[in-house]
Amino acid sequence: MSERIDIRTAAQQLLAAEDILLICHKSPDGDTIGSACAIQHALAQKGKRSAILCSDEIDARYDSLKPAIFAEDFAPAYVVSVDLAGAQLMGERAAVYAEKCNLCIDHHPSNTGYAAQLLLQEDAAACAELVFELLREMDAEITPIIADCLYTGLATDTACFRFSNTTPNTHRVAAELMELGADHITINKIHFETKSRQRLELEKLALSTLEFHFEDRCALIYLTTEMLQATGAKQHDFDGVSAIPRSIEGVDVGITMRQKSGGTWKVSVRTTQGYSATKIAAGLGGGGHEQAAGCEIIGERARAKAAILAEVEKQL
Amino acid sequence: MSERIDIRTAAQQLLAAEDILLICHKSPDGDTIGSACAIQHALAQKGKRSAILCSDEIDARYDSLKPAIFAEDFAPAYVVSVDLAGAQLMGERAAVYAEKCNLCIDHHPSNTGYAAQLLLQEDAAACAELVFELLREMDAEITPIIADCLYTGLATDTACFRFSNTTPNTHRVAAELMELGADHITINKIHFETKSRQRLELEKLALSTLEFHFEDRCALIYLTTEMLQATGAKQHDFDGVSAIPRSIEGVDVGITMRQKSGGTWKVSVRTTQGYSATKIAAGLGGGGHEQAAGCEIIGERARAKAAILAEVEKQL
Repeated sequence: MSERIDIRTAAQQLLAAEDILLICHKSPDGDTIGSACAIQHALAQKGKRSAILCSDEIDARYDSLKPAIFAEDFAPAYVVSVDLAGAQLMGERAAVYAEKCNLCIDHHPSNTGYAAQLLLQEDAAACAELVFELLREMDAEITPIIADCLYTGLATDTACFRFSNTTPNTHRVAAELMELGADHITINKIHFETKSRQRLELEKLALSTLEFHFEDRCALIYLTTEMLQATGAKQHDFDGVSAIPRSIEGVDVGITMRQKSGGTWKVSVRTTQGYSATKIAAGLGGGGHEQAAGCEIIGERARAKAAILAEVEKQL
Repeated sequence: MSERIDIRTAAQQLLAAEDILLICHKSPDGDTIGSACAIQHALAQKGKRSAILCSDEIDARYDSLKPAIFAEDFAPAYVVSVDLAGAQLMGERAAVYAEKCNLCIDHHPSNTGYAAQLLLQEDAAACAELVFELLREMDAEITPIIADCLYTGLATDTACFRFSNTTPNTHRVAAELMELGADHITINKIHFETKSRQRLELEKLALSTLEFHFEDRCALIYLTTEMLQATGAKQHDFDGVSAIPRSIEGVDVGITMRQKSGGTWKVSVRTTQGYSATKIAAGLGGGGHEQAAGCEIIGERARAKAAILAEVEKQL
């Protein structure tokens, strides 16, 4: 297990380190990227080299945060994972560092303690909330670009201060970051107010398949490969689509079935509190969180639908 | 024109008044209702009678804010309008007070100055942000229900801190309200995570009318009275629908046309920064905020559309 350290010690470690590798989790989101970029800019202020490594591609929406990406000629002397609850989240390209992580900076209560040292603040809504404090402790100047990085982390991990993880401190850090130059208008626009036309088409098609079961307590939508091809949707166009059925008034279980190549259906299960998405998904070999889980089903749509609805029925 | 007064004077006026009528604007939203309810609870603490009058029905989603609604046996001695930029927003039932408004508490830069006295804070994201300060000046205790009222106003007028009107102060007030007992989780769930089936149907229909103009920089949707009747949508089901066209990637001006009885179109204008929604709406006798404004147009759909697009073209 990791040695738990406080913010002050973590700041000292970073200020003592050289050639620092910053690892983001696979399927990177705004918090892992924003937090890593903020640390990178702060390290640069201190004259230190660093590189960001992520197993999956970092979307162009994060270009303005200016990550300096790992290249083969960078020889890491100190390895830091940012926003990674477990080493398996490093993904394929970073897996070589799973056993060599010097410091983990995280906010997930489920952190597995894989790093030598661990700075963990479970009540932080976002890793960025904790990194804000860390950079202050490092006596780094919170420049506008660092403010942008941290605001991005804060806003994306809370769905713009909407999720229940948001605390008074989250709001206060947001206020400070805005005063320090965070361009909240542009960041919110990119992440929360802009839908691609492909995404809109996807929503239209998904809504056209909407059906209700079990006295309207379960709502189900599906997307076939033909529908997906027709819209030209990209991976990130799916963000949030599986939240749609559960968001309907009176619905306790929302199901989204997405056809993948090879006759498989990727099924997302979303539930309101009191109903276990994990149990529904586990009935078909899947897993996840209590209110958001998933599984895969092979076969015809009608059969796959019957299979998942049978699991839903057991929990209603 | 109104006499402009400061928060301190406004607080003194309210503390000196008796039998206070609080007027919400027609098509009431979370800010006009939340702000009026907060003032009402504060006045009750001071032993004062008050009643809330709104020309349109107040949705059940606001029941927990416990508005004490105007009844015919209430004889107003002092009239306050809350979040009303112009007297015409009083609507039919409250129109009798249009010339008798003692105090207007508002945050709209377009306020017409119809009240005898005006407390206007244009940089407040929501009227509730200003009312928070006003209640403190009145030395009212911010109880959990008052915190709920004000958080509702703050969150609904900023789309949960997402819109460009959000300031550092908005976040700081949100933090304080949460500490004072605002149930942000429940409020956010009601307003931002739950959609009625009617609302979903409305979105489907609206998306089916989506059209683009001026090299895709303007997107327009419309809803006819037949479409509205087919969905059985209620007033509050429209919340946010008018944000859809502007939310499309690359769109600077989003227009939503909603047919009303009597051959009128209610037109919502939403713009990205740098484009004035106010100017577009003002060209047709309307008004509002820089990025969100509205107007009404009488006539056939084709004519109304041509009229609004002509105003859009001038600003692009």
